[in-house]
Amino acid sequence: MELYFLGTGAGMPSKERNVTAVALTLYDERGTMWLFDCGEGTQHQILRSPLKASRLEFIFITHLHGDHVYGLPGLLTSRSNQGGTTPLTLFGPPGLEAMLEPVLRYSQAHLSYELLYREVGEGVVFQDDRFEIQCSKLDHRIDSYGYRIVEKDKPGKLDAAKLHTQGIPPGPLFGKIKRGETVALPDGTVIDGKSFIGPPVPGKKIVILGDTRKCEAAVSLSSDADVLVHEATFDSSLDELAQMYYHSTAKDAAQTAKRAGAKSLILTHISSRYQEDEAARLLSEAQQLFPATWIAKDHWSFSIS
Amino acid sequence: MELYFLGTGAGMPSKERNVTAVALTLYDERGTMWLFDCGEGTQHQILRSPLKASRLEFIFITHLHGDHVYGLPGLLTSRSNQGGTTPLTLFGPPGLEAMLEPVLRYSQAHLSYELLYREVGEGVVFQDDRFEIQCSKLDHRIDSYGYRIVEKDKPGKLDAAKLHTQGIPPGPLFGKIKRGETVALPDGTVIDGKSFIGPPVPGKKIVILGDTRKCEAAVSLSSDADVLVHEATFDSSLDELAQMYYHSTAKDAAQTAKRAGAKSLILTHISSRYQEDEAARLLSEAQQLFPATWIAKDHWSFSIS
Repeated sequence: MELYFLGTGAGMPSKERNVTAVALTLYDERGTMWLFDCGEGTQHQILRSPLKASRLEFIFITHLHGDHVYGLPGLLTSRSNQGGTTPLTLFGPPGLEAMLEPVLRYSQAHLSYELLYREVGEGVVFQDDRFEIQCSKLDHRIDSYGYRIVEKDKPGKLDAAKLHTQGIPPGPLFGKIKRGETVALPDGTVIDGKSFIGPPVPGKKIVILGDTRKCEAAVSLSSDADVLVHEATFDSSLDELAQMYYHSTAKDAAQTAKRAGAKSLILTHISSRYQEDEAARLLSEAQQLFPATWIAKDHWSFSIS
Repeated sequence: MELYFLGTGAGMPSKERNVTAVALTLYDERGTMWLFDCGEGTQHQILRSPLKASRLEFIFITHLHGDHVYGLPGLLTSRSNQGGTTPLTLFGPPGLEAMLEPVLRYSQAHLSYELLYREVGEGVVFQDDRFEIQCSKLDHRIDSYGYRIVEKDKPGKLDAAKLHTQGIPPGPLFGKIKRGETVALPDGTVIDGKSFIGPPVPGKKIVILGDTRKCEAAVSLSSDADVLVHEATFDSSLDELAQMYYHSTAKDAAQTAKRAGAKSLILTHISSRYQEDEAARLLSEAQQLFPATWIAKDHWSFSIS
C-alpha cells in the first residue's frame, strides 16, 4: 500500500500545490486504487503520475467544498473516454449525487462503466473480508468527514522450521496445516494445524481526515493509526484564523496524532501563503510535539508496510 | 485586442494541451477580458499566464460538453477568493445555469461578486456602443454555438494638417470639430466639423466557433472575419471520424475560412493523438487551401490590430 499525494494545497491551486486529492494504491491487496477527495485538476495530476484512473475502485469525498470535489466530473468522464469499464463507487456526504448528477446529465457524459453512489454518515461505511472503513464527522464549516481504513488482520505465517523439526515433509498437507485444519499424517499421527501458525499479522490502519478544527472526533477516529493524514492549513501563529475558518494548524495536527497514539503523521492541505521553504516551518512545528511527522507535497508518496 | 489561448486540446487534457479555453483581452477597449469556454484547469492555466481572473467581464460558453465547461466552478470561486468584485456575465446555451447552480449551492460557494446568466440562441446576444455579439447554432452532437464579435466602426481621425492649412488654431474648438459639430470660428467663419474628419476606422470582426462539423452556419457567421478561431480535431485522413463525432478536420476549417472570406484562421481543439510535431501536419493541410492559417498552442497569443 502506498499513499500518493496528487494535490496538497488549500482552497485554490498554486503553482506548487494543486487542490486536495490523495490516492491509496492497493495493488497487492485488491489490484485497485482508492482516491480521497478530488479537487479540480486531479485528472491532470494523474496524467503526470504513475497512477491510472482505470484502476480506481472507490472515491471517498470528505466534504463538498469545491477544492475537494470540482475535479470529479472531469476525472469520471476521462476515465470513461480512456475505456475504463470496472464499476466505480463514490462515497461522500449527503448532496454529492445531487451536486454531480446535473453536471453529468447536461454535459451528456455517457460513462462506459457503472457509477454508484454511497452516502456516508457516522459509522461503518464499507466492509468486506479484507477492509473495514469507518467515518466520523469532524468540525468544519460544512459537514466534513474523516475516513478510517482498517485492514483486517492477516493469518499468521506457517512455521516451516517447526514442521521440519517434527519431521513433517513439505507437500499438499502444508496447505491444510496453513489453513489451521486438523490433519492426519501418513503414520497416523494427528496434528492441529493451528499450532504451526504464527500469530495473526495486524492489518494497517490508515486515517485520512477532511478539513477540520482540532476536535475529539478526530482523536477518536485516529486512535492507534499507522498513518494519519491531517490538514495543516496554517502555522500556530495563525491559530485565530484557523479557528475562524474551521481549519487546523500544524500544531493542532500534531496534538491530535499524539493524543490518538498514531504511529506517523502526514501534514497536507497547506495554505498557498507558505512557499516551499516556509512549509518547513509547519513541519518543524509539528515535529516538536510529534517527531514522526512528514509534510506532503504534490507527487510525493509514502509507503505503508 | 489579443487572443490568448489557455487550452487548445480536444476532449481530454494531455501533457501538451489543456482542454478548451481562449481569452480575448480588451484592455484598451474596455479594461476587461472575455473568456470563450472554460475546460477543467482553466484557472490553473490563468495562474501560469499574464491574465487575471479579476478582469473577467463576460464568459461565453459554446456548448455544454465537459471539456468546455468543467473549469467554470473552480474559476468562478477562485475569482471570488482572490477578491474579484465586478459583476460577471455568463453567456451560454440553455442548461448552463441548471448545470452550474447545484454545484455552487452544494459546495457553498458564496461569490463576492454578482454572477449573471444570459441564455444564448440564434441572433444578437449582446450589444453596446462598442461591440455587438452574434450567435449561430453549428452542427454538433449537442447544441453548439459560434460567437461573432463585431467591434463597431470607430470615428475617423481628425485631419490636423487640413485644419492647420486653413489657419484654424489648436484649442478647445478641436474637440467640437472632432465630434463633427458645426463650429463658428473667432473670425465669424462657420465650418462643418465633419469635413475635417477622416473616414470611419472599421472595427474588428472576430469569430470563435464551438465544436462543429463543416456547415453553412459556420460560413455565414464567419463572413469577412478578421480572425476565425476554428476547431480542427482531426486531419483529413480521418474525415470519417470527424463526420461520426461531429467534428472538423483542418481542411474543413480552411474551406470554411476561404468560403467566408476570412482574413486569418486559427486552428485549435487539436486531438491528443497529434503530438507537437505531428500537429504541423494539420497546419500545412489547412495552409494549402488557406495560407493565412496558424495553429494555436497553450499560452500562445495572437494580436489583433
